[in-house]
Amino acid sequence: MPGQDAGPGLARLSLNQITAERWSVREAVAGCLQAGIPNIGLWRHKVEETGLRESVRLVREAGLGVSSLCRGGMFTAEDAAGRRAALNDNRRAIDQAAELGTEVLALVCGGLVDRDLDRARAQVAESIAALLPYAQERGVRLGIEPLHPAFAADRSVIVTLGQANDLVARLASPWAGVVIDAYHVWWDPDLYSQIARAAGHILGFHVNDWPRRNPEPLMGRAMIGEGLIELRRLRCAIDAAGYRGPIEVEIFNQAIWDRPGQEVLGLLRERYLETV
Amino acid sequence: MPGQDAGPGLARLSLNQITAERWSVREAVAGCLQAGIPNIGLWRHKVEETGLRESVRLVREAGLGVSSLCRGGMFTAEDAAGRRAALNDNRRAIDQAAELGTEVLALVCGGLVDRDLDRARAQVAESIAALLPYAQERGVRLGIEPLHPAFAADRSVIVTLGQANDLVARLASPWAGVVIDAYHVWWDPDLYSQIARAAGHILGFHVNDWPRRNPEPLMGRAMIGEGLIELRRLRCAIDAAGYRGPIEVEIFNQAIWDRPGQEVLGLLRERYLETV
Repeated sequence: MPGQDAGPGLARLSLNQITAERWSVREAVAGCLQAGIPNIGLWRHKVEETGLRESVRLVREAGLGVSSLCRGGMFTAEDAAGRRAALNDNRRAIDQAAELGTEVLALVCGGLVDRDLDRARAQVAESIAALLPYAQERGVRLGIEPLHPAFAADRSVIVTLGQANDLVARLASPWAGVVIDAYHVWWDPDLYSQIARAAGHILGFHVNDWPRRNPEPLMGRAMIGEGLIELRRLRCAIDAAGYRGPIEVEIFNQAIWDRPGQEVLGLLRERYLETV
Repeated sequence: MPGQDAGPGLARLSLNQITAERWSVREAVAGCLQAGIPNIGLWRHKVEETGLRESVRLVREAGLGVSSLCRGGMFTAEDAAGRRAALNDNRRAIDQAAELGTEVLALVCGGLVDRDLDRARAQVAESIAALLPYAQERGVRLGIEPLHPAFAADRSVIVTLGQANDLVARLASPWAGVVIDAYHVWWDPDLYSQIARAAGHILGFHVNDWPRRNPEPLMGRAMIGEGLIELRRLRCAIDAAGYRGPIEVEIFNQAIWDRPGQEVLGLLRERYLETV
């Protein structure tokens, strides 16, 4: 409850770059500096637009922490060539993360193959296992992010934190962990027991909100504090499980993307202090 | 797999009335007779439009089985008056189910109250417990239907079959069970173990499908066989858990609703034989 807890403090706040979707890396870095946001979560397509070397220079000169790189994954494919291409793409993503100085590559694991959930889930597990030696070599941790079940068909067959924890247990490597995103997991009856179980391998925490009416899961994410998720309870549980890392505000929402970025950053900073 | 199993047989096929949304009870009953569909799942608003007595007469004269009445539930409310009103409404639904000669009232349990999932879930459990003596008296079973997590905010805080099974275990009454709807549960990593656990208290099985792209969970349900759900595997697992009752085809989809009802019934009968 607000009031019973001092809040996580500004030092942990991170702008996930997609929240200011129209901005380049340069603009997002400048926006964070102006708003007093000390960390940024970068997206690969933005980094590639600006160039990797230039992106590295921009975040270093600004003194920002890079909380994560979004995103690796998309491992599932009908054929061997597709799966190999995905692994190669993920190795590039690991390289980019290492260059950018972030410890965490967030994984959106990929959707259904044919109609076979079991097969798709096996492909995800095998692919992450195959990447771990490379991730370790480059010093980058792989953060398995369970997505909301509304995305099971097209984005992620990993749909609960329990399932992600099971996967981490089987992988048995300090280079694999979970990223917990409020929007994706808030509805889960096992959420709090699974957060406790994730102690020691929580690699990221994304905040956003679920609006009262949400006809469109992909772009329906709300500004923190404007929806129904008990964000402070969730953050306290994640803290209690030992996570001390950055808290990324990540919001897919066209109306928010259409607002001036600096205004959005001011608002999210204020809401973060009030509600997270 | 098709071919390894003879299929469930037409005797178990049921038209959930919402699939032919434009039809009255009279039209839906006539449609079932013409299509050779021996069972119907009725909706309360349609029954109330036609009148309860007339609806009873129509289904009896046609010799149709009534597989369920949709729907009771919506138990969650901010205040005591709201909760009492919900219980009274559910007693009326139980009366209607008894008159219609169906054993099953399907429950859509209700969404979030304030931001408190735990409180909403406790309200659901208490409300069902409070209704059980009345349900028993009238000979109607209460079928807890877990809904897809996309509906946790506004329709059902019961979102997994495991959670519904837990609730049934706590209620410990032969008058409480579960209704399993393919669209709502297909994504769940624990689905098959929870189906086995539901043996003895499966009160209904709804089929429909999840399309490859589904931007709109409420109305995005696909015709059986046109989406990604392994319907035959699911049906075989539910059979293996001892369920021998009707299989309702229940599809919310504007494009299907806009087609001539008789055409839709012909198609679903064919697809049911092929894919369920």
